[in-house]
Parts: sequence; C-alpha cells; structure tokens
Amino acid sequence: MNYKADLLIIGAGPVGLFSVYQAGFLGMKTIVVDALKDVGGQLSALYPHKFIYDIPAFKEVLAKDLVSNLQEQANQFPTTYLMECLVNTLHINEDKTFQVTTSTQDVINCKAIIIAAGAGAFVPNRPPFANVTEFENKSIHYFVKDPQIFKGKELVIAGGGDSAVDWALALYDITEKIYVVHRRDHFRAAPSNVAKLKELAKTKKLELVIPYMLDGLEGEKGQLAKVLLKTLDGEKKVIKANSMLALFGLARSLGSLEQWGFNVNKLHASIDVNPVSYETKIPRIFAVGDVAQYDHKLKLILVGFSEAAVAIHSSWKYVFPDKPFHFVHSTTKN
Amino acid sequence: MNYKADLLIIGAGPVGLFSVYQAGFLGMKTIVVDALKDVGGQLSALYPHKFIYDIPAFKEVLAKDLVSNLQEQANQFPTTYLMECLVNTLHINEDKTFQVTTSTQDVINCKAIIIAAGAGAFVPNRPPFANVTEFENKSIHYFVKDPQIFKGKELVIAGGGDSAVDWALALYDITEKIYVVHRRDHFRAAPSNVAKLKELAKTKKLELVIPYMLDGLEGEKGQLAKVLLKTLDGEKKVIKANSMLALFGLARSLGSLEQWGFNVNKLHASIDVNPVSYETKIPRIFAVGDVAQYDHKLKLILVGFSEAAVAIHSSWKYVFPDKPFHFVHSTTKN
Repeated sequence: MNYKADLLIIGAGPVGLFSVYQAGFLGMKTIVVDALKDVGGQLSALYPHKFIYDIPAFKEVLAKDLVSNLQEQANQFPTTYLMECLVNTLHINEDKTFQVTTSTQDVINCKAIIIAAGAGAFVPNRPPFANVTEFENKSIHYFVKDPQIFKGKELVIAGGGDSAVDWALALYDITEKIYVVHRRDHFRAAPSNVAKLKELAKTKKLELVIPYMLDGLEGEKGQLAKVLLKTLDGEKKVIKANSMLALFGLARSLGSLEQWGFNVNKLHASIDVNPVSYETKIPRIFAVGDVAQYDHKLKLILVGFSEAAVAIHSSWKYVFPDKPFHFVHSTTKN
Repeated sequence: MNYKADLLIIGAGPVGLFSVYQAGFLGMKTIVVDALKDVGGQLSALYPHKFIYDIPAFKEVLAKDLVSNLQEQANQFPTTYLMECLVNTLHINEDKTFQVTTSTQDVINCKAIIIAAGAGAFVPNRPPFANVTEFENKSIHYFVKDPQIFKGKELVIAGGGDSAVDWALALYDITEKIYVVHRRDHFRAAPSNVAKLKELAKTKKLELVIPYMLDGLEGEKGQLAKVLLKTLDGEKKVIKANSMLALFGLARSLGSLEQWGFNVNKLHASIDVNPVSYETKIPRIFAVGDVAQYDHKLKLILVGFSEAAVAIHSSWKYVFPDKPFHFVHSTTKN
C-alpha cells in the first residue's frame, strides 16, 4: 500500500510509542514500522514480566505495564502501525521529503523520520553459504511459524540451544525423520528436555549428528536435497534431507538502515547523531533511544523519551515549514 | 547543623525529586535544599490540580499526583530535606569538594552538586530602599507566618492584590490600626473581599491610603517608625507605623547562585551548562531541568528527568573516584 504521513517512526518500542504520543501532541500525522509482531520492542519480546526501576514517577513498573501505559498515551492520537515490517530503501525526493519502501511492499511518503529502532531488529544468524538465500523460506527456515510445513519431511535441525532441542521434540511426531546437527555433545537446554531428546535418539526417527557442523547446501530451485557436514577435524558427511531449521540464535542488526548513508557502528547497531538535536548525518532523519549514539550517551529508557521529545520538536521546521513553532506547555491539552 | 553528603541537590521540584531517586539508585548519599515549605516545586506551589500531559507512560497526571509518585520513588533511598532553606555561599576546598552555607545557618559538605532549581526560588519583590534590609524580618515582613506578631501594631499593608486585601481583613481584629497603601483605587482581589475592606475603612481602625506609593522608610535598630509616601504627582505624606507587610508579589531569582561564578542569565534565571553532561562552568556542579540552559534546550519536565539521570551518572567520577563505573540496567534492583 501507499502511505503518506508527516513523520515515519521506525520502531514501536517504548521510545517509538512515546514518539507517537509526542508527535500527535504537536499535531503531526505519524506512521510506525516495526519488525516484531507486537509493540513494546524488547520490553514485550524479551522481558515483559521484569520490573523496571528507573522510569520517573514509577517506584517500579512491569515492562509489559509500561508498554500498555505508553500505548494508552499514544492511542490518544491516530496512527498507523505496520508490524512485522522492515524498512527497505530510502529515496530522497527533490523537495527533500522521503519515499521509503518496506519488506511488505508498502511505500511510505513522509517529511521527516524518527528512528527509534532500539538495538536494531533481531535477525536470525544464517548459515554462511552463498546459496542459502535460494532456499530461505522455501526449504530452509529460521522460525517455526506453522509446524505443519514440516509434516513428512526429512528435516535437519541445526543448532544446540533450547530452540533446537524443543523443536526436535515438538516436530518428532509429524516428520519422517529428524537429524539434529550440533558441533559438540552438549546442549544449552533444559536437562529434562535433553534427556528426552537422547531417549528419542534411540529410535530410527531421530538421529543426533554430533560433533558435526554445516559445510554446504545442495538442491535445486529452492528445494534442499542434501546437507553437507564436517567435523572440526575435517571429516565429512552428507545427509539427504529436504528441509532444514537453522537455529543459530538471533543477532542484532540495523538491516537496510546500514545502507541509508548514516555513520553507523555495525557492532553496536547504532547510528551517530548530533548530541543536542539527535539529527543524523541525513537532514530530516533523527535517531533516538538506544540506537542513537553520541559522546556521553546513557542508554536508559528515560533518556530515549527525552531524546524523542527533543527530536520531534526539532522536526517541526521540516513538517510545518510555514508554521512558526509555539511552545506548548505540559499542561496544555490540544 | 553540619551535614555531609556525596551529592547536594538544590531544588526539590520534580527534577530534584527524581535526582534523589537516581542518586540513591547509584548508591550516593544525598541532601536536598529547597526554598519552599513543600516538595514538588511549581507543581505543588502553582498548579497542583492541573493535569500534565507529556509525562511518558501517563495519559494524563495531576501535578500533585506526579509529585507524590516521584516522592514515593525517591523515598526508596534515605535522604535529608532542608526545606524553607536557600543556599548561600560556596566554598571550594583544596581537594575540590565543596562546603555550602545556607540561609538557615546550616553547613553542607559534599563532593558534587546538582542544581535543579527550576525557575529559581520565588522571592518577594522588596520595597526599593537601601535601608529596607535593616527592618526585614523585624518590623517589615513579606509573609505572614504567625499573625500574632502583628498584635497591637500600627501596621502598614502595602500592595493591591489578594494578599493585601485578605491580610487586612484577617489582621483587622488584632492590630491597633491598619493602613492599606495602594497606588490606585482598584484592588486585584475577590469583589466580596474588596467590599468588606471598604466597609472596614469606615471605621477608625482601618484606613485606605490611596493613591499612594512607598517613598521611604524611617526607624532605628530594625524598628520601623515612619513610612514615607507619595502620589504619582509627587504629593507627599508620612504615616507613623511600627510594622509593615510589603505584599508586592513574588519574583523568580537564582538568589545567591548568581554569585557562585556560573555563566548565568538573570532575566531567565538560568545557568549555562555543557549540553551533553550538563556540567556547569564550575567542575563538579551540574544544572538540570528548567534552570539549565544550552542551545536547543527544551523546557519539558521529562527532559529534566533525563538531564538529571545523565548528570548524576556523570558525577560518578567525582563521588566515587576510586570505583570504576558499571552500568546498572533499568531492571536491576540494588
């Protein structure tokens, strides 16, 4: 779809949500893009039931309650959320406004951008083979959205963590055969589940291929046919398989933002900004919260809130070039 | 009294209260000084029953409720509040720590200072005569703390606002005589009270001296004897009186802070700071919230919260010079 807004907010974590409120409070029309299914960022995805202690005026607050409070505050103003969506390309129009494309084939036209991407999107670590992309989402998967797609498959599960063990147990009944490939004989998973896995490995339907790691992929037109393996010593092995779950954990990444032209620090998934306006190297694009980097940066949620307020006030001149800015007091309701 | 703390916090408004919490969270011992009787600054003194709309995670919050929430958060850590107290002189010790004296004759020893003085202390506008100081708090008063000190007095009440009218009515019974001196025949006060005042002026115990303004003070050893008056046209008059209430309203002032050596803007009652650490021109002294001035400054409470968090983290090296700083996560409880 084609969207038009004053402000594109990238990230629907706590700082992104507060940005929706702050921009709405100043009369700006917003649209929000986030890689996850639910708003709240890490607070919802990683620690919804942990208490946060340094939000002003809360003695303590559960991460999930902070998110729902921020949502309630943001919901005072209309906005559009595009969830499970990543920004893709940036095009700068002649009049300096932007056209942004997304992974969901949407196009967003906007006058300024607030990047509140936190620690970046969480993306799966991928097997390091050039041809991996041709199998992705066809016969190689990084998440299990629908277990039924593995029905009757000869499935390689690669990895040694919780997910590898848990999915081996969960998919055992519906697959034809499961190979669990791991480079050492130790799983970082609940001992009881590891015990169950080893019990199932006594049957013909599940085989532990240890200590092996991936060495290559073979197949045609997106259909995996063979998985090449090797040991640390170079001993090789080939498995015939038509499906793979690669579970090597998630990494933080700025994704396409890395190609937009900012000064980025890939390791820390951060973008350099002006330390008082939070504007990036690209005029009209601001970064706030954990993703924004400058000297003395303190990565606290409340600092992100403040940066968002300042950045959005700073964006006024781009959003409303013809309207002089009149300071709106905290106690003024629009 | 003599006090010793890591951090002196000047101002117990919302940003000062959050500073108490933030410093306590980092294990710093604090002491707080405020000019007012109650914590909360302007929120308590000027608009306790107004809603504030831009505090993150609050759809709206009454100013007084925000103050009590901040108090509850701050109260997790012990601190000492010196209320109705103004800082006076600053002495920098050889080891760069400070000794601060106060209007209440207290002495505070500390390693760093956070100035969260808001718009400054509210101080009474004083009659513009060089000798006014010798009568202050003896026979000339700006507030009524104890009405009984006016018992049997020949009292001049100077001013034309609510306070002048209300105190004339309230003190009528216990004084020998009241003169209400005002430069015009219009009082900015409740009409019903103005009517009462005019009714009492028909008696011998209360006289409206209009249109007159103060022209001088006479007396000895702090004891007022005569009040000199004049009209706009220069017509003069002298009143025999032994007590005065000068009610010309309150002004904002940095008070003694103006003499500490900062770059100050007296008109805006603000202090220049480094825009990323919020340190002032004097090392170890930080200013945060409305009192702190730098380019792009946005005077919002939430910006003050963030500045306080950053400044207090910045003060770590002064407070704990031998302890390396380890970042404490929002979800870590000390």
